Amino acid sequence: MQNLLNRQVLLRNRPKGEPKAADFELAESPLPVPGDGEILCRTIYLSLDPYMRGRMNEGRSYTGGMNPALGSVMIGGTVSEVMESNNPAFPRGAFVLGFNGWQAYAVSSGAGLRKLDPKTAPLSTALGVLGMPGLTAYVGLLDIGRPKPGETVVVSAASGAVGSLVGQIAKLKGCRAVGVAGSPEKCAWVVKEAGFDACVNYKSEPLRPALQKACPSGIDVYFDNVGGDVLAAALTLINQNARIPLCGLISQYNATELPPGPNLAPILVNRALIKGFIVSDHMDRLADFLRDMSPWYREGKLTHREDVVVGLEQAPQALIGLLRGRNFGKLVVKVGEDPTLKSC
Amino acid sequence: MQNLLNRQVLLRNRPKGEPKAADFELAESPLPVPGDGEILCRTIYLSLDPYMRGRMNEGRSYTGGMNPALGSVMIGGTVSEVMESNNPAFPRGAFVLGFNGWQAYAVSSGAGLRKLDPKTAPLSTALGVLGMPGLTAYVGLLDIGRPKPGETVVVSAASGAVGSLVGQIAKLKGCRAVGVAGSPEKCAWVVKEAGFDACVNYKSEPLRPALQKACPSGIDVYFDNVGGDVLAAALTLINQNARIPLCGLISQYNATELPPGPNLAPILVNRALIKGFIVSDHMDRLADFLRDMSPWYREGKLTHREDVVVGLEQAPQALIGLLRGRNFGKLVVKVGEDPTLKSC
Repeated sequence: MQNLLNRQVLLRNRPKGEPKAADFELAESPLPVPGDGEILCRTIYLSLDPYMRGRMNEGRSYTGGMNPALGSVMIGGTVSEVMESNNPAFPRGAFVLGFNGWQAYAVSSGAGLRKLDPKTAPLSTALGVLGMPGLTAYVGLLDIGRPKPGETVVVSAASGAVGSLVGQIAKLKGCRAVGVAGSPEKCAWVVKEAGFDACVNYKSEPLRPALQKACPSGIDVYFDNVGGDVLAAALTLINQNARIPLCGLISQYNATELPPGPNLAPILVNRALIKGFIVSDHMDRLADFLRDMSPWYREGKLTHREDVVVGLEQAPQALIGLLRGRNFGKLVVKVGEDPTLKSC
Repeated sequence: MQNLLNRQVLLRNRPKGEPKAADFELAESPLPVPGDGEILCRTIYLSLDPYMRGRMNEGRSYTGGMNPALGSVMIGGTVSEVMESNNPAFPRGAFVLGFNGWQAYAVSSGAGLRKLDPKTAPLSTALGVLGMPGLTAYVGLLDIGRPKPGETVVVSAASGAVGSLVGQIAKLKGCRAVGVAGSPEKCAWVVKEAGFDACVNYKSEPLRPALQKACPSGIDVYFDNVGGDVLAAALTLINQNARIPLCGLISQYNATELPPGPNLAPILVNRALIKGFIVSDHMDRLADFLRDMSPWYREGKLTHREDVVVGLEQAPQALIGLLRGRNFGKLVVKVGEDPTLKSC
């Protein structure tokens, strides 16, 4: 493998507002060599997620550490194949879920890696329905939203990786599931494929009346991924003791000044709850999540849609599009060949 | 008592924006006569509270029922003396806490009344430190705010009936207590008399830097009575896992259009919680409240300040002033003579 080069996407500039292609730099470097106890990973899939925008800023990330320095590799979750191994826990040919970032190869000690069995589910699902977005939906809806059968659960970004699962888990729990999404195609998929009861297109119809019509009994759980106008409209329709898991505020991630938020009077009069959460605080629920979601997935109870972009060099534009609401389903970058797909 | 007249304050108009004197009507009517099982109550103290503004609007109140009709007596908590009794549970001469509204006399079946013992505490305290505002502070801080020793608790309207107790209970629980109030006199009282660690005057200094200086370790609990700029400033200083009991939004009760609220990004990144609550949902905590607060009061651990307005006819202007932040302490109207004060 001596002649191979690594390809990486580096953070070149901290974006002001919306990231631009010039904020990223595609670089080549010699292939890293695994030392004692280390493995060489070849990236197959790279996950692109909205949180990455915040990690491009100066300062501390909300998960604790400092954001990556300028010039370092963009961070991100990955599915990789082990190409060389000096670590018996991860033999050559194994597939691993890790956090190797925007690069074609990486060396790892194995810390924080999880082995994947391609026989139980396609490798890419470890970045979506059976991965971090799935756990986000599961924890946010069940632990914070605490939906009861018969209640109405509304979720924004309903065709996205997290939102599409929130509604489907809500249905499995006996709730009415209503999505909000940004195109007729997305709304049609949310209802017909993902099985939501209704989906409102926030771009084509006045949001509040459409949401009110879709929620004749009001809103008991509003799972928010976007903030802004959708959150404001949903707040006006909440029921007493409503719960609002605050998962994301993608509508303002590119904002240079934080816009005002919704009026909180409905929270007061309805004794409602807003709770921000970060999935990385809830890894204690990973085993429960996999125990519940894996059979649901295998039994066909969970529809998921992947939006696969091919080639590491496409990752910057794909992230820019994600922040604009352009993707449809879980956004992953296919960085390298997936050998498990050959056998299909 | 046949020659006596009842005096009442009626709701004449539903206010648009700030209530005006002309929205109230002072009326006289014959003294009501208690029937079988009923008692005649003479109002001694009437409580004035911010929630009353909402009850003047059209529609449903947030506690469930319809708001009072035009022409009906303004609602409110009262301490009364029983003048005539056909109900052995409430003999003549007893003192009772009830909800008789803005009037000098009322007939009651006794339902919902609680007998008061003037030997244990002055009668007016049943409307303040040992009454609904006290229970509000107790439940909101302890059950929703859940302060831990060493944490920083910030409360707005800190010289008010609820706010002054929130800070004092926080101190009793080992926390740093920081108030926000609207005059140098109020801030001085909050620190010197009520024993808070600090108090910021939101009218005389830039709020956020002053609050930041008063909270060198950030904010763990922000008990909000006001909303608006104070809530927005507090949100920028919250710590991870902060709790925000949302008790009131007095800054906007007179608003004809709901203003935008604070940006919620700090809630997301800090995994914080906002929870609206209404004290009437928490009457199951009344016994605990009285068990804890009565001895604290008797032992002099709770400072409380009453802002006593004399005369039922002063109630409208007093409520208008309350909504403007003019009162200082628990606002009560002395409607009639308090016979228990004579013996002092």
